[in-house]
Amino acid sequence: MSNKIINDPVHGFIRVKFDSVLRCINHVYFQRLRNIAQLGLTHMVYPGAVHSRFHHALGAFHLMQVAIEQLRVKGVTISEKEEEAACLAILLHDIGHGPFSHALEKSFFKKISHEQISIALMRAMNKEFNGDLELAIEIFTNKYPRKFFYQLIASQLDVDRLDYLKRDSFYSGVVEGNIAVDRILAMIDVVDNEIVVHEKGIMSVQHFLLSRNLMYWQVYLHKTVMSAEFMLIKFFERIYELIQKGENITSSNPRLNYFFQLAEEERSQLSPEIMAEFVKLDDSDVWTVLKDMQGASDEIIKSLSERILARQFYKVCFSEKLYNERITQFSNLDLSLSPYYHFSDTVTMVAYSAAQPIQIVTKSEGVLPYEEYIVKNAMIYSIENKTSKTFYYSL
Amino acid sequence: MSNKIINDPVHGFIRVKFDSVLRCINHVYFQRLRNIAQLGLTHMVYPGAVHSRFHHALGAFHLMQVAIEQLRVKGVTISEKEEEAACLAILLHDIGHGPFSHALEKSFFKKISHEQISIALMRAMNKEFNGDLELAIEIFTNKYPRKFFYQLIASQLDVDRLDYLKRDSFYSGVVEGNIAVDRILAMIDVVDNEIVVHEKGIMSVQHFLLSRNLMYWQVYLHKTVMSAEFMLIKFFERIYELIQKGENITSSNPRLNYFFQLAEEERSQLSPEIMAEFVKLDDSDVWTVLKDMQGASDEIIKSLSERILARQFYKVCFSEKLYNERITQFSNLDLSLSPYYHFSDTVTMVAYSAAQPIQIVTKSEGVLPYEEYIVKNAMIYSIENKTSKTFYYSL
Amino acid sequence: MSNKIINDPVHGFIRVKFDSVLRCINHVYFQRLRNIAQLGLTHMVYPGAVHSRFHHALGAFHLMQVAIEQLRVKGVTISEKEEEAACLAILLHDIGHGPFSHALEKSFFKKISHEQISIALMRAMNKEFNGDLELAIEIFTNKYPRKFFYQLIASQLDVDRLDYLKRDSFYSGVVEGNIAVDRILAMIDVVDNEIVVHEKGIMSVQHFLLSRNLMYWQVYLHKTVMSAEFMLIKFFERIYELIQKGENITSSNPRLNYFFQLAEEERSQLSPEIMAEFVKLDDSDVWTVLKDMQGASDEIIKSLSERILARQFYKVCFSEKLYNERITQFSNLDLSLSPYYHFSDTVTMVAYSAAQPIQIVTKSEGVLPYEEYIVKNAMIYSIENKTSKTFYYSL
Amino acid sequence: MSNKIINDPVHGFIRVKFDSVLRCINHVYFQRLRNIAQLGLTHMVYPGAVHSRFHHALGAFHLMQVAIEQLRVKGVTISEKEEEAACLAILLHDIGHGPFSHALEKSFFKKISHEQISIALMRAMNKEFNGDLELAIEIFTNKYPRKFFYQLIASQLDVDRLDYLKRDSFYSGVVEGNIAVDRILAMIDVVDNEIVVHEKGIMSVQHFLLSRNLMYWQVYLHKTVMSAEFMLIKFFERIYELIQKGENITSSNPRLNYFFQLAEEERSQLSPEIMAEFVKLDDSDVWTVLKDMQGASDEIIKSLSERILARQFYKVCFSEKLYNERITQFSNLDLSLSPYYHFSDTVTMVAYSAAQPIQIVTKSEGVLPYEEYIVKNAMIYSIENKTSKTFYYSL
Repeated sequence: MSNKIINDPVHGFIRVKFDSVLRCINHVYFQRLRNIAQLGLTHMVYPGAVHSRFHHALGAFHLMQVAIEQLRVKGVTISEKEEEAACLAILLHDIGHGPFSHALEKSFFKKISHEQISIALMRAMNKEFNGDLELAIEIFTNKYPRKFFYQLIASQLDVDRLDYLKRDSFYSGVVEGNIAVDRILAMIDVVDNEIVVHEKGIMSVQHFLLSRNLMYWQVYLHKTVMSAEFMLIKFFERIYELIQKGENITSSNPRLNYFFQLAEEERSQLSPEIMAEFVKLDDSDVWTVLKDMQGASDEIIKSLSERILARQFYKVCFSEKLYNERITQFSNLDLSLSPYYHFSDTVTMVAYSAAQPIQIVTKSEGVLPYEEYIVKNAMIYSIENKTSKTFYYSL
Repeated sequence: MSNKIINDPVHGFIRVKFDSVLRCINHVYFQRLRNIAQLGLTHMVYPGAVHSRFHHALGAFHLMQVAIEQLRVKGVTISEKEEEAACLAILLHDIGHGPFSHALEKSFFKKISHEQISIALMRAMNKEFNGDLELAIEIFTNKYPRKFFYQLIASQLDVDRLDYLKRDSFYSGVVEGNIAVDRILAMIDVVDNEIVVHEKGIMSVQHFLLSRNLMYWQVYLHKTVMSAEFMLIKFFERIYELIQKGENITSSNPRLNYFFQLAEEERSQLSPEIMAEFVKLDDSDVWTVLKDMQGASDEIIKSLSERILARQFYKVCFSEKLYNERITQFSNLDLSLSPYYHFSDTVTMVAYSAAQPIQIVTKSEGVLPYEEYIVKNAMIYSIENKTSKTFYYSL
Repeated sequence: MSNKIINDPVHGFIRVKFDSVLRCINHVYFQRLRNIAQLGLTHMVYPGAVHSRFHHALGAFHLMQVAIEQLRVKGVTISEKEEEAACLAILLHDIGHGPFSHALEKSFFKKISHEQISIALMRAMNKEFNGDLELAIEIFTNKYPRKFFYQLIASQLDVDRLDYLKRDSFYSGVVEGNIAVDRILAMIDVVDNEIVVHEKGIMSVQHFLLSRNLMYWQVYLHKTVMSAEFMLIKFFERIYELIQKGENITSSNPRLNYFFQLAEEERSQLSPEIMAEFVKLDDSDVWTVLKDMQGASDEIIKSLSERILARQFYKVCFSEKLYNERITQFSNLDLSLSPYYHFSDTVTMVAYSAAQPIQIVTKSEGVLPYEEYIVKNAMIYSIENKTSKTFYYSL
Repeated sequence: MSNKIINDPVHGFIRVKFDSVLRCINHVYFQRLRNIAQLGLTHMVYPGAVHSRFHHALGAFHLMQVAIEQLRVKGVTISEKEEEAACLAILLHDIGHGPFSHALEKSFFKKISHEQISIALMRAMNKEFNGDLELAIEIFTNKYPRKFFYQLIASQLDVDRLDYLKRDSFYSGVVEGNIAVDRILAMIDVVDNEIVVHEKGIMSVQHFLLSRNLMYWQVYLHKTVMSAEFMLIKFFERIYELIQKGENITSSNPRLNYFFQLAEEERSQLSPEIMAEFVKLDDSDVWTVLKDMQGASDEIIKSLSERILARQFYKVCFSEKLYNERITQFSNLDLSLSPYYHFSDTVTMVAYSAAQPIQIVTKSEGVLPYEEYIVKNAMIYSIENKTSKTFYYSL
């Protein structure tokens, strides 16, 4: 048993008891996450939010240990092997993230999610570790029969969300996002192979959902953060576009140049060769290319890189009318380039989905979905399925 | 200038710059609040919640200073004299509370609220301090023309609520109640003599309302707390009842005996004599009487005091059916006494009242009431006016 | 298994897994601690420090669970029965405290410490619980062969100190006392039946010792706190003195009257009868007597009670010269009473005692006492055995 | 007035009231600090310690505002212009830091400190801003007659240290470093143009010194952090060495290549041209070069870059004997390269320097240096001038 202890300002001490977990932490694929910002360019608005995906993965792993301990206290039988596998699965759940996490998720691959890359990397590591990750992969891909393990990793109340909300709130300083992780985990149990929450924890669940919603609108979807990240996406788009057109665009960075040179169809598949290049990437590659491109001959590329580095982001408004008024100012711009200068985007936030409900276990009525429980008990906040909001961006 | 500094684990250091404020803090009326629990018997459930009303009054006073500083930053002109008066008014706003704060609010006086007593005491102190509290009383009674001062003391978003929510959350350990006081106060301004909140702070306001609701159901109206407090109320009721009937009930405590002997009509008026006795009371008087009464000959008084001290509170359920089943067990009890053994009570919680709305100041549309702003911006939580819940208590 | 969860703002959730522990918590002897301030009159200076000894006992019990878990991780075998007994022993270690904890420790009994009373009460409870506390008492009285259990309860680095430092820092708002409890407990182990600390934790131990020293001088021995508590002690002394002289001093409080009437020799023994009266006492009795005595005919008693309630404490200085100058002002006072009006007292604080050292386990040199380790490693703070300071109190 | 508010999880909200300060924050020189880790490679041990120098500079600026407010409360007259200049000076005090802050401070320039670069950059910005930074530079270079301003920026108790200790403690999760910034700043005053601390704050000063010492040994000089940073330094040394020898070493990174190609004498002066290149550098350049160099033909460069990225740092011990035993294993290594494979280094930590003492203002004896005050008052911790420790590093 490794018994290594890692300091975490968010959860206190993180104890790593399994050698296999320690081995994965020390793997270069995982170490790479140190240089990948958990929240992309959010630190442009919240300067404290510079924490890494490495740290989040450790935190989620820690909460998995806490959750399993709590379930055992309730009498749920969980073997050492299952515990180890669940820990490995959550530790590696985000290993497929590329530079700037979600912000650039669609800038490297087409139609391939970071979860798919995570699975591919877990399979590669499994081979390297002689099958030690077999059960972890089974859980992560929801093939393991005791499906509550999967729910702890990926559901509306999983340890991933519990960690990232608490962590992002901590580092950004947006105290309203500080959820009661300990209380929620003290209230979980397993009924019929599914995670349920005791009704005594109902208000903590409600608070968790509300805090998540608040963190989305106040932090993750903050208009300036969105503007920054869209400009970065546009920057990549422009480079790809010019290269498709045959222009000779190269940066000083060999790792990103490799991706720039890929044909579009190559970016829709996870070949071993591409994967081998992908795991070399981190935020530093993007930053250096942004710095290089300040001297680019293409006006768009030059302007976007300069602006991002100087923190001069596009203006954002929420009214189509104002936006249309504003963009008339730019009538002298090359029309073909206008999608780089002004554009809109609609964001949809699902506060709570009844499709795969959070289950509440009650004293008198057995298990009820969250939304039903709320109605039955005349609790005052109705949570609608989703809210959409259109952001209008312009120079 | 006094420049005294008081340590507060909730807000950090509280600076007392006005001599008049320091004089009021040192007054025996105010010192009395040290022995009055802010949350009555809540510590029976949340053992950390033993903080005093003295501390809350200091905290609210501190937040008044912060609020005034923030308003000045926004360009609102506030004179030293106004600042001092507003500070005095909030410091003394709760000085009329008796033992166990709200829990026993109706056990000493009939139809007289603690606010009325606060005003009476402020007037008495004003005389003693040669009129130094004149303006403070004007503000507190909402007679001062600049009514935003009154709103800082008593409205849906006043410094009273900001302090008690944050403080009660801190001491109870219910982290979900930890509101973003600093952010809210950074967002306030004055428009047309009224407190408004800049729309950038909308989510903090929402979070504040939700946290308040959560604190009510999870802490203030926690079923075990309610049961404890109702038993204490019943204990007082029974003593009064027997004394009305002419029975000779005395405790060892001269201060409470005085109140026990008052005729009911005397308890509906604030005579100077009664006031003079009232300001001698604090929690310790009630505790000692509870201890005395464990040996009472009256079965009800004896049982209630024993049970409260041994923490054996009445059972609470929320279903009339279950309650009716339960109380059939007590059919052998003296029927005339049953209201002491089982009873129900309906609690109504107003999450947000549109009658005196929180005002949001927007860039494009001027000032809007909170509820309108929420609808216009398709924000996802509808807040209904009120929720009611019936608690059924029984042996 | 009881599985009860108690909210604690200091440590988070406290889980009570043993039914026997829950039974002890619910016992009236333990519930009594709710009305005994952990820090006597300290809240007169630090208004937040109103936490109870009830809460501290729960916190220390929680840390015992954490400590035992950590020792098991290191491979120390601890049976369920031992764990339960250690938990019971720490839970009840302070059950013998009377009103205002240490402040009045010598005002009720002569030559009897609160530990002796704790043992007596534990024995009484053991009888009531049919011997369930047998092993707990064995540990508490250091008769159990595995002496590290005793060290966890009473040594220079026990869970009692770990809890009270962290808790007192939290409630007083003196952040410098916030020790790294989690880190220290993560570093303990057992060697040769004794608690040792791994050398990786050496700086946390140092920080703990320094914080403890700081808390003593800044909080526990704060001159105003000391003055307040001495006045309370003098108040009791005077009452006893007059009663010895045959004067008829009675308060309204039957529980304290009982003690006032005891002959001095009766107060040096723990008779069952006296014990039965002692467990009725809590802070509220003292407060009500203070209020009663404001009308006393004896000048000393009247003055002390009035001053304590109005927070007008004796002046404190640290210079004999200034003190002597000051007391010449009181030459008109009745000389025989002067020890009530001005007096001095020397306090000695042992920062670290080499007599029963904290043991450090090193990689290369086995176990070393803390003071030796510090010297060997040229660490920069020498900690002398003790510091003494004389406080001069006067009207 | 700008009135911008920035979220800071450490201090709460940071208000930027001066337009000039906002202009400096928005300057590319200052924005560059976003990508410069405050603590170099410390996050390799404490994964949370990823905060930027940008954030520290904002925090120190905030504390300057607090300090000035506190001094005004004490009656010290400070003009708006002085306040603005002091704010600008502290905001920009670290603007001369290069990649990885202190870790690589000597890898880019010879005999030029980051403070000198800060001054040079401030002068450049001053020109750009038409002299707006004149007074700030005067204060920063200690030419302003009211020297307490300089002491707030650079002394043993300056806002720089107050911010970094609190911030580094917060982000690393080493709670023992959490100093009482608010209390210390509440205790400062100005006597004879110098910053003094009221004696009531003596224990907070002591705690601050002890915490600083603890942070040095536990965090800044943690053996693994030191090993990581030395390897990075050696990596740069080797590149310079080979280039001096005429070997063709280039990375993909044009910004670092520029520095690699400089002659040694060029690196001892701050020419405008070199400065113009320096301000392009940040951590991302170093990371990308490390990645490039994993394929280097030189064994040393290849090995160091691979090891740093895979987190395989040199072993550290503190005993020369063990070290000598260990390095005999490497006898087969090329002798000329051995300084890259094993080496030692002595670190000296000055806990407190009496040369420029912290001044304590007392009631009875005027101003005393800290060390004298401690002795006079028999306070128990002697603080020696310095401790040295030799670290031995090897493969």
